Amino acid sequence: MSAPANPAPYQVDEPVEGVVRLPSPFPLHHGGALTNAVMAWRIVGPAGAPLVLAVGGISGHRRVGAADRGWWSPVVGAGRALDTDRYRVLGVDYLGGSADSTGPACGGPLLPSLSAFDQADAIASVVRALGEAPLHAVAGASYGGQVALAIGLRHADLARRLLVISAADRIHPMASGWRAVEREIVRFGIRTGDAAGGLKLARALAMCTYRTPREFEARFGGEPRRDADRFRLPIEDYLFARGDAYVAQYRPESFIALSESIDLFRIDAAQVRVPVTAVAVREDELVPYDHMQAFVARLPAGRLATLDSIYGHDAFLKEGDALRPIFADCLEGPAR
Amino acid sequence: MSAPANPAPYQVDEPVEGVVRLPSPFPLHHGGALTNAVMAWRIVGPAGAPLVLAVGGISGHRRVGAADRGWWSPVVGAGRALDTDRYRVLGVDYLGGSADSTGPACGGPLLPSLSAFDQADAIASVVRALGEAPLHAVAGASYGGQVALAIGLRHADLARRLLVISAADRIHPMASGWRAVEREIVRFGIRTGDAAGGLKLARALAMCTYRTPREFEARFGGEPRRDADRFRLPIEDYLFARGDAYVAQYRPESFIALSESIDLFRIDAAQVRVPVTAVAVREDELVPYDHMQAFVARLPAGRLATLDSIYGHDAFLKEGDALRPIFADCLEGPAR
Repeated sequence: MSAPANPAPYQVDEPVEGVVRLPSPFPLHHGGALTNAVMAWRIVGPAGAPLVLAVGGISGHRRVGAADRGWWSPVVGAGRALDTDRYRVLGVDYLGGSADSTGPACGGPLLPSLSAFDQADAIASVVRALGEAPLHAVAGASYGGQVALAIGLRHADLARRLLVISAADRIHPMASGWRAVEREIVRFGIRTGDAAGGLKLARALAMCTYRTPREFEARFGGEPRRDADRFRLPIEDYLFARGDAYVAQYRPESFIALSESIDLFRIDAAQVRVPVTAVAVREDELVPYDHMQAFVARLPAGRLATLDSIYGHDAFLKEGDALRPIFADCLEGPAR
Repeated sequence: MSAPANPAPYQVDEPVEGVVRLPSPFPLHHGGALTNAVMAWRIVGPAGAPLVLAVGGISGHRRVGAADRGWWSPVVGAGRALDTDRYRVLGVDYLGGSADSTGPACGGPLLPSLSAFDQADAIASVVRALGEAPLHAVAGASYGGQVALAIGLRHADLARRLLVISAADRIHPMASGWRAVEREIVRFGIRTGDAAGGLKLARALAMCTYRTPREFEARFGGEPRRDADRFRLPIEDYLFARGDAYVAQYRPESFIALSESIDLFRIDAAQVRVPVTAVAVREDELVPYDHMQAFVARLPAGRLATLDSIYGHDAFLKEGDALRPIFADCLEGPAR
């Protein structure tokens, strides 16, 4: 067990951020290359504190914690599971995403197939450019868990430990089926001239897979209401509102690129030499519990923490309290 | 226990079929009415044998058994669970469907909201017109299970017993969420000028909900292959092929009407006076096992049979052998 380098109370510095130019051409794992690509990053936390990369689902971006009203605010912030009083947190905009790293233009051509290994390579460029290697840890959930594992495999010197939530060494075909339908809905929207409409529906479907029947039953068991011309169910009001909110912040082309990237992930877990704390959620419908167990059993230095959560795959976004001891164990635990 | 009226071996007669004119106007459960509506029916089996109505999912139609290469061939046929050597089997085309009963025209306006009670009323008209009341039994699965229950509630004199597979007295919001997304995909296709493309995607999604993760993992765990411009996963080849096959035989407007009809179903199980044999599938992701248990507990004369099936909600289409003793118990069991 190694304590953070400087456990004293820190003065919280201003966030810093920037853009790192990637090697050009930047070869891609599945073939092809990006030219003049950049990756945008952001660091929040007290100067001198150990640096933890935090990466999440395909819609994640460089604004991670509560101070930024980021995508992982329930987990990352002062006094939270990833405590920004004790750690600096690095966030990045994914390649292929809809923020400031290289990605598809809205309405522009689709990118070549991306891989979590491409994200890992780009992140390695960022971390080395910042002179921050090795990172104290990489904490990744969902797609970010794949990225964390890709870092551990491809850049074993870049991070001393990995925290991998709801991501395994392979993909379940049922999860791929849902995502394949989602991507095809978006392509259908692009083809018929309403890409935003397609993305809305894809996100509505994705919400069904991120959550659990138990949560939906508790929240949306009410009666249908008669609208102008037809009935509407409580669940569809919710799903399509989430779809509308998503369209306002995310590009259809990014969704296709990063959703596909998830489905192309396959690794040999036995080759991951960095210590891994894996977190499995029993109710996760995208990354089944038995996959997580088998994955951890193949890791040379892996341990498994289990969560029960009504939020299923979205537990990593919701279960800040339950994740607190797991983060503590990982961040103060075995390191390479 | 009452044996069929005439258990001797029968000569199998030619199938008979026809169209029954419904009362006009034909008032609908959720408001509005159909005018000049008709319902198409078909009977297969030996003259004089007891008559069993067999109704299935929203894509079901009047061609039920193996002799017709019907939608329920693994279950209905000579020597099968519903033995057409011992029983005559009545099939109908659903109102709102894509066969010969009144339904939406392809590319035409959508129908008013339909209900399983409307199907029950139309079926009652057919059975009375044929002079076949009371039916020996109604065997219904999925949407057909709702129709069977609607018959039991609204036309308790029409059937002596009900066999209800994978349908309960209420709908799970997760199942409604998936179906709401499916319907919205079809509406999206209609709006953007490619209704068939929308229906294809909706059916691909529906296939994910009809089956189980275990089946998909066993069948579709293989590697992605590189197509012209992107990767394709084994699961998506399967799902979209199923979607294409569906588009060839089913109308987008029918899908919207009958899918909505499922989601509007709510009954008071305590009011079902006809004996019910209910069949629950533990792996059913659309009609969860705990819903089936609670539903049967509320029935005045209900008993529950349980299946384990890798086919989930589609077990009723696949598990002919496992259904054989359940059909026997029901068809020779308690009657009103």
